Amino acid sequence: MLDSLKAALGEKVSTSPTDLETHGKDEAYPVRSLPQAVVYAQGLEDVIQTLAWARESGSAVIPFGTGTSLEGHVLPQGVAVSLDLSRMNRVLEVRPEDFVAVVEPGVTREQLNAALKGTGLFFPVDPGANASLGGMAATNASGTTTVRYGGMRHNVLALQVVLAGGEVLELGRAVRKTSAGYDLKDLFIGSEGTLGVITRLTLRLHPLPVHVHTLRVFFEGLEAAADAAYALMASGLPAARLELLDELGLGAINRYLQRDYPEKPALFVEFHSSTREALEAESRTALELVREAGAIAVDAARTSEERTAQWEARHQLYWALVAQYPGHSFMITDTAVPISRMPELVRHSQRLLREMGLGGSIVGHVGDGNFHTLVATGEQDYPKAEAFAARLVEKALELGGTCTGEHGVGLRKKKYLAREHGAALEWMRQLKRLFDPQGLLNPGKVV
Amino acid sequence: MLDSLKAALGEKVSTSPTDLETHGKDEAYPVRSLPQAVVYAQGLEDVIQTLAWARESGSAVIPFGTGTSLEGHVLPQGVAVSLDLSRMNRVLEVRPEDFVAVVEPGVTREQLNAALKGTGLFFPVDPGANASLGGMAATNASGTTTVRYGGMRHNVLALQVVLAGGEVLELGRAVRKTSAGYDLKDLFIGSEGTLGVITRLTLRLHPLPVHVHTLRVFFEGLEAAADAAYALMASGLPAARLELLDELGLGAINRYLQRDYPEKPALFVEFHSSTREALEAESRTALELVREAGAIAVDAARTSEERTAQWEARHQLYWALVAQYPGHSFMITDTAVPISRMPELVRHSQRLLREMGLGGSIVGHVGDGNFHTLVATGEQDYPKAEAFAARLVEKALELGGTCTGEHGVGLRKKKYLAREHGAALEWMRQLKRLFDPQGLLNPGKVV
Ligand SMILES: Cc1cc2nc3c(=O)[nH]c(=O)nc-3n(C[C@H](O)[C@H](O)[C@H](O)COP(=O)(O)OP(=O)(O)OC[C@H]3O[C@@H](n4cnc5c(N)ncnc54)[C@H](O)[C@@H]3O)c2cc1C
Ligand SMILES: Cc1cc2nc3c(=O)[nH]c(=O)nc-3n(C[C@H](O)[C@H](O)[C@H](O)COP(=O)(O)OP(=O)(O)OC[C@H]3O[C@@H](n4cnc5c(N)ncnc54)[C@H](O)[C@@H]3O)c2cc1C
Repeated sequence: MLDSLKAALGEKVSTSPTDLETHGKDEAYPVRSLPQAVVYAQGLEDVIQTLAWARESGSAVIPFGTGTSLEGHVLPQGVAVSLDLSRMNRVLEVRPEDFVAVVEPGVTREQLNAALKGTGLFFPVDPGANASLGGMAATNASGTTTVRYGGMRHNVLALQVVLAGGEVLELGRAVRKTSAGYDLKDLFIGSEGTLGVITRLTLRLHPLPVHVHTLRVFFEGLEAAADAAYALMASGLPAARLELLDELGLGAINRYLQRDYPEKPALFVEFHSSTREALEAESRTALELVREAGAIAVDAARTSEERTAQWEARHQLYWALVAQYPGHSFMITDTAVPISRMPELVRHSQRLLREMGLGGSIVGHVGDGNFHTLVATGEQDYPKAEAFAARLVEKALELGGTCTGEHGVGLRKKKYLAREHGAALEWMRQLKRLFDPQGLLNPGKVV
Repeated sequence: MLDSLKAALGEKVSTSPTDLETHGKDEAYPVRSLPQAVVYAQGLEDVIQTLAWARESGSAVIPFGTGTSLEGHVLPQGVAVSLDLSRMNRVLEVRPEDFVAVVEPGVTREQLNAALKGTGLFFPVDPGANASLGGMAATNASGTTTVRYGGMRHNVLALQVVLAGGEVLELGRAVRKTSAGYDLKDLFIGSEGTLGVITRLTLRLHPLPVHVHTLRVFFEGLEAAADAAYALMASGLPAARLELLDELGLGAINRYLQRDYPEKPALFVEFHSSTREALEAESRTALELVREAGAIAVDAARTSEERTAQWEARHQLYWALVAQYPGHSFMITDTAVPISRMPELVRHSQRLLREMGLGGSIVGHVGDGNFHTLVATGEQDYPKAEAFAARLVEKALELGGTCTGEHGVGLRKKKYLAREHGAALEWMRQLKRLFDPQGLLNPGKVV
């Protein structure tokens, strides 16, 4: 059957072992599973042809951006081709006067921000990895700046998608507001390649902040850190990032970088202010608030060098853990709860790690009630890490939270959707059947 | 058939002429059409029973909040009962520590904000009218503060909905972020009562701004006003409202209130600053920006009295027009375009009004590229006003815009959806058939 695909798409179809290998894994899921081929689409027509071939052959199609997802999103569950969109990577249009950019799905966020240089604008969603914008829309990605600028759902104005049946739909418009009919765009955002292939995105841009200041603040315990985070959120100060790092992570950083940070929970806070005077005043107010909440050590950074130094603990965490646990891989469990329940869930997570004899650390987008537990797992520990994740998710759901704040469902979180959504899950399945009756698009994922 | 409904719901079912009358019209659609009865639901069970009866009897059901919609949303298109949700009006829960409130659908936005007194928080979406929150979610309402705080889509975290089949679904969670499965919540937001009945909402609250300052700025022409609006948006200043009023409106205000405002396009701008020092600095920067863009008259307001006086022209516009055109009613056409196309569309709208001999004025949420044209229509002018609206919408679509930014589709905008959405419209219709196969919920609307 691959012959007819090759006949249609020629050199764009690869069956080289390296290509199959790089498309048969993600950044964290422990299992590998190879596609039968990789199609490197170079345009809309290639996507349409790949789907036409899939309908004929019955082979599944798995859209692939940069493969940085973490929950088994891109792993074949049977016979499948990987539809790699990384070569559809043109920035098609930048319209600063509309705060809009139009891109192909393979454009990465760093590539887009490089293309925006000189416009005074930027695209704020930052999931850590230099992911593709198509993949980011498909997973409804968000990140450190979401507390201020929103995640993908808030920053994608329109999508072009190709359905399993080959139809090309334009969803949404390049406007900041519309109430014209059912919101299909948001149905496709976060659908993880199971409802359609995203072939173009219209994105909302934001003014680059001119005045940035940051604080790194240590607290005696999690409650105090949480109180401070709440006070900052309630103050109306223009917080653009609000991150928590726990004492386990700071311990790892101290050993890795030979530092002597207090091994206490820390908040990393960044403000984007519109004038220098505002910056000064907001900085003062923020300092007062964190001190009132019980900060035991605070430092502020104004220049970009100072900021880089200040955030090192947050940015180097992953590598510090890798160094601390040689030969381990990491499972990253992403949960989100109502903001006030963060400390309870973080404490629960730390206790579970201890009880189960697992190493790791917690890092969180605390302004959004969203955090990740990084669990070091040796080959044989994997079932234990899985059991840890299951107990953590159970607790998050019990606290009114969600099984995933931003990483998505993929394979690993499927089992929690019934508990989280109840009867609504069956309606999600019906939508899957409506848009993809043959079950060709990334089957076995999400629903 | 009404007998069985009355048997089930007793006093909650009304067929009094006044009730039928108030539920057979909206605030702007020129046609009336009476339901056969009004059901005043007092809880979830009443909604479920009304739908069970509808499935048996084949009667349509039209959810009704406060009836302030403008496009014929609530008008029966055949045999129908109006399902009035205004008595489901309890604020069920306020959790300031989570920035969350849970309400029944009949709670109005003013009622909610009154209930939030003392928490330091507020619910920002303000569609002018004191609408019900269920109706606001059903129309994806937004308003003057959307430029900063977003509209309903951004501020509804979760919904309880009852489907036509009687099933009760919980969509979304009380968290600020989730990527757990398909986004059904946003499918129901903006579905105008055609996919399900909203019976509970979980809403996101925001800190009340402590420091507010406003500017009223007049310009020689629309270009200059648009340039100023762009400069303000691109500056990163914390604009919370950014409204445009055209010279026609200011003329009406001058005659109505005996004022001598310049009869020129004006911007009304409000900033929410986090400290007093920030306010001063931001005010200065804003003044510089509007002067550079060519402001011919500027005044700033700091106190809440000054602000009220300053915004009078914006708030009294409707009444000024009513006074100017006695015996007329008003058609309000809502369009939105990419921000840079605002001046072109506003000019087009003014020229059309003139050419067609229609009176009216333009008022816009210019920061969102969204504006309303208020057209004075006598009894016999209605077809002319319709023709005006059609030409304006055509132009908005041609400029890459949408046929409705916030008022929704109802009856009147249905005819534009094919042009706006192309092939996607058929998929909207399929969703309607999936969720409401008997076509019981507000039939004839949206799709
Ligand atoms: C170190 C690290 C840190 C991370 N931190 C974050 C974080 O803070 N926040 C966050 O949200 N995520 C985070 N992630 C996860 C990951 O980066 C995001 O999920 C990202 O959005 C995936 O994009 P991608 O291009 O790599 O997609 P892929 O991994 O290639 O694909 C992800 C899913 O999207 C689908 N898909 C991809 N492209 C398309 C398309 N064009 N059309 C339709 N479907 C498509 C795939 O089928 C798959 O289901 C992190 C990952 C790593 C490795
Ligand atoms: C003077 C004036 C100014 C306005 N300005 C704005 C503005 O700036 N922005 C804006 O967005 N709108 C504006 N509107 C329009 C209107 O206020 C909004 O559309 C509002 O959201 C309607 O709410 P409602 O409770 O009156 O709904 P209704 O008019 O009662 O119903 C509207 C639609 O929602 C459905 N519905 C109502 N309740 C439910 C429910 N619980 N479940 C399911 N469906 C339901 C109805 O079936 C109907 O289709 C304005 C109206 C007026 C009169």
